[in-house]
Amino acid sequence: MKKSEVLIVGGSAAGIVAGITAKQCYKNVKVTLIRKEKQVLIPCGLPYIFGTLGSVEKDVVPDTILSKNGIDLIVDEVQSIDRNNKTVATSRGKTIGFDKLVLATGSSPIIPPIPGIDLGNVFVAKKDFDYLNTLLKTLDIARNIVIIGGGFIGVEFADEFNKRGLNVTIVELLPHCLQLVFDEEFCVRAENKLSERGITIMTNNRANKIVGDKKVKEVELSSGKKLKCDIVFLGIGVAPNTKLAKEAGLKIGEHRGIWVDEYMRTSDENIFAVGDCAEKTSLLTKKLLGARLASAATREARIAGANLFQLKRKNEGGICTFSTIIGDLGIGGAGLTEKAAKDAGFDIFIGRATTLDKHPAGLPSAAEMNVKLVFEKETKKMLGGQISGGSTTAEVTNIFAVLIQANMKVEEVVTFQMGTHPMLTASPIAYPIVTAAENAMARDRVS
Amino acid sequence: MKKSEVLIVGGSAAGIVAGITAKQCYKNVKVTLIRKEKQVLIPCGLPYIFGTLGSVEKDVVPDTILSKNGIDLIVDEVQSIDRNNKTVATSRGKTIGFDKLVLATGSSPIIPPIPGIDLGNVFVAKKDFDYLNTLLKTLDIARNIVIIGGGFIGVEFADEFNKRGLNVTIVELLPHCLQLVFDEEFCVRAENKLSERGITIMTNNRANKIVGDKKVKEVELSSGKKLKCDIVFLGIGVAPNTKLAKEAGLKIGEHRGIWVDEYMRTSDENIFAVGDCAEKTSLLTKKLLGARLASAATREARIAGANLFQLKRKNEGGICTFSTIIGDLGIGGAGLTEKAAKDAGFDIFIGRATTLDKHPAGLPSAAEMNVKLVFEKETKKMLGGQISGGSTTAEVTNIFAVLIQANMKVEEVVTFQMGTHPMLTASPIAYPIVTAAENAMARDRVS
Repeated sequence: MKKSEVLIVGGSAAGIVAGITAKQCYKNVKVTLIRKEKQVLIPCGLPYIFGTLGSVEKDVVPDTILSKNGIDLIVDEVQSIDRNNKTVATSRGKTIGFDKLVLATGSSPIIPPIPGIDLGNVFVAKKDFDYLNTLLKTLDIARNIVIIGGGFIGVEFADEFNKRGLNVTIVELLPHCLQLVFDEEFCVRAENKLSERGITIMTNNRANKIVGDKKVKEVELSSGKKLKCDIVFLGIGVAPNTKLAKEAGLKIGEHRGIWVDEYMRTSDENIFAVGDCAEKTSLLTKKLLGARLASAATREARIAGANLFQLKRKNEGGICTFSTIIGDLGIGGAGLTEKAAKDAGFDIFIGRATTLDKHPAGLPSAAEMNVKLVFEKETKKMLGGQISGGSTTAEVTNIFAVLIQANMKVEEVVTFQMGTHPMLTASPIAYPIVTAAENAMARDRVS
Repeated sequence: MKKSEVLIVGGSAAGIVAGITAKQCYKNVKVTLIRKEKQVLIPCGLPYIFGTLGSVEKDVVPDTILSKNGIDLIVDEVQSIDRNNKTVATSRGKTIGFDKLVLATGSSPIIPPIPGIDLGNVFVAKKDFDYLNTLLKTLDIARNIVIIGGGFIGVEFADEFNKRGLNVTIVELLPHCLQLVFDEEFCVRAENKLSERGITIMTNNRANKIVGDKKVKEVELSSGKKLKCDIVFLGIGVAPNTKLAKEAGLKIGEHRGIWVDEYMRTSDENIFAVGDCAEKTSLLTKKLLGARLASAATREARIAGANLFQLKRKNEGGICTFSTIIGDLGIGGAGLTEKAAKDAGFDIFIGRATTLDKHPAGLPSAAEMNVKLVFEKETKKMLGGQISGGSTTAEVTNIFAVLIQANMKVEEVVTFQMGTHPMLTASPIAYPIVTAAENAMARDRVS
């Protein structure tokens, strides 16, 4: 029987980083990654296959990342885990032993029980090379696409499908796209950009029925409206892949992810779970987090990988840092929105700033930046930040993340030691994180 | 006699922000800014006048920033301060009273005593509208420029002069350009980019003599080489403008700046000094800082402005965060370089990472990022970060600044809760701040 001291199940971001971290922290340990896919796709890159990249091939994670880090690769599917004997059984009939097992089995797109969902040309963001190639080919003979769900996945695919010249309509149940992750003003900015680019948005609308004959022809909405289409794309959300863990008797959490402790251990201390398949808790609210992000997955993998043979790193909870871009409009957030903070019972104050991401204003391609910060009234700690801007949006969002993670108070944010440069940032006079904090302090004084 | 409860001397970034902050913190106080320039230029924007912007006009700070913040403006020059009577006298013969005075008198380019320095067509980065207009016009009839000094100013002007099609040579005393602020590998990257763009670099060379007949014709170097030129541009550094403070009997610091305490008060508690004219201390070494940065100036102004009538904010010391761009190569740093940390007596370990600023690699205009982090061995605290990269370089540098300011340790940096996006950041697997921290931990383990 083959044995690997560390065995990782799942080959996407979380699995890879768990392996790399294990090798960094425990140099002489044998680490094997087992995955069912011949080729692994960059999960966040999926939408960009269809517009910017132009091929599925270009979104593949090269396997050299495993080999150059000393990680063995097996392409096979784990069917079951024998926790007593510390082995897994694969679909090719192999048994592999382990000392420590890491589950990085990911998540799968949710397929809602809408009538007609089984018709041809209904697609989801499945991380499968051949499946996505089929979607790519189908796009070539399509004209109208209806996207059900206006979250990140829906919005990003909409923008990329639109880049191919297709007529795209987003159907969203809530009053706004991206409403679960941004305050209304940022949702509106994103929607305006989508509309400006020619994408139709139908919010406050449910897709009641998909109609067709073998292939989709129409989507019927709750408003009664019927949308003709050649393709339906579902961006409803994802559900953790927990079958393997469940069948092995591991504890499952309230959000249907694999339960883990702060060291990323499952209910079996020799089995860790990381990434989309694992349950997540918010650093700020201590409640369960619904978001599934590749960046958070790799962070969990860095914690689990270090803890395999000795508990070294703790997961105090997730902040939830994310960003995207629609056309040239970047949009990002970290921590709690104003709404989320209020819903969680925080007494808060907020600050806002608007400026340009270059200075002076006459520099080519200067983009407007809008920043909103949320602070807790009692402690003055920063709870959240949101931004819309240009190409630096994501890294500014990452500044929010550190400010939150480091428990920075509003008076520390206002004297944050940023550097500025005409071609690369806002003006030092108007650097928006600082001026939004100053604005928040002024509001806090009068409230 | 006119009186303003708050009187600010100097109209550049520090003066403006001191005024805005005073109005934010003390709403009903009268704030007046007095400056000698009719129009104020964005200081960091000066180099970009000559290539990217194309006119001095485009680098002007609009005075609406004063009016819309309720700050009165007087264009006149303060000649002396009467500390007993709390008044200033101006060159137009006015006397203005104050309760609190803020000195934001800035700095002036150093003119070294090289023979021939007084010849025509020797220029410096003087923040003067008409002077810079003369330089702009002189460039139109010039072909060869010698820049003396390869620091930020020298390098930025070189790149912009080169954009106009001029032959540019940089003469630098030290072995590398930018050597006072970056470790050698980053200096070399910057130099390679300058060379690639057609700029000649002559390091380890002193300009011994400027030769000409009314106008410059040649620069003689210590190596014996003679460089023909139509213009000499000096980028040697700046010296704080302290004449007014000195004559008023205020204490001057060891670095020739106006001495200030941690509240930004001078030796007279009713007079504050901020920005380039004020002495600076390093947060990390507690020693004096030579750097003069607009971003640091505005931070000091935010501290002074808040402290005018009640001590509210403290300056614990500067981190020194800066960035620039040469062609498409961004380069930035915060805190201590490896060399500076060693020179200051720190026992350190470092980590490095190289990746792309987008993922997958096939995305258009993905730029290589190189990150180097410096940590203290005893405390594991982050002391510094350097980066070369693309358009996000400055904001990544700002992440370094928060990590340092927040006293983050290497094990916190490695699990930093960054977000990632294909079009906007490095891959979550290879996010360079995190992987450089992981690299540093691995080196620390074996050392």
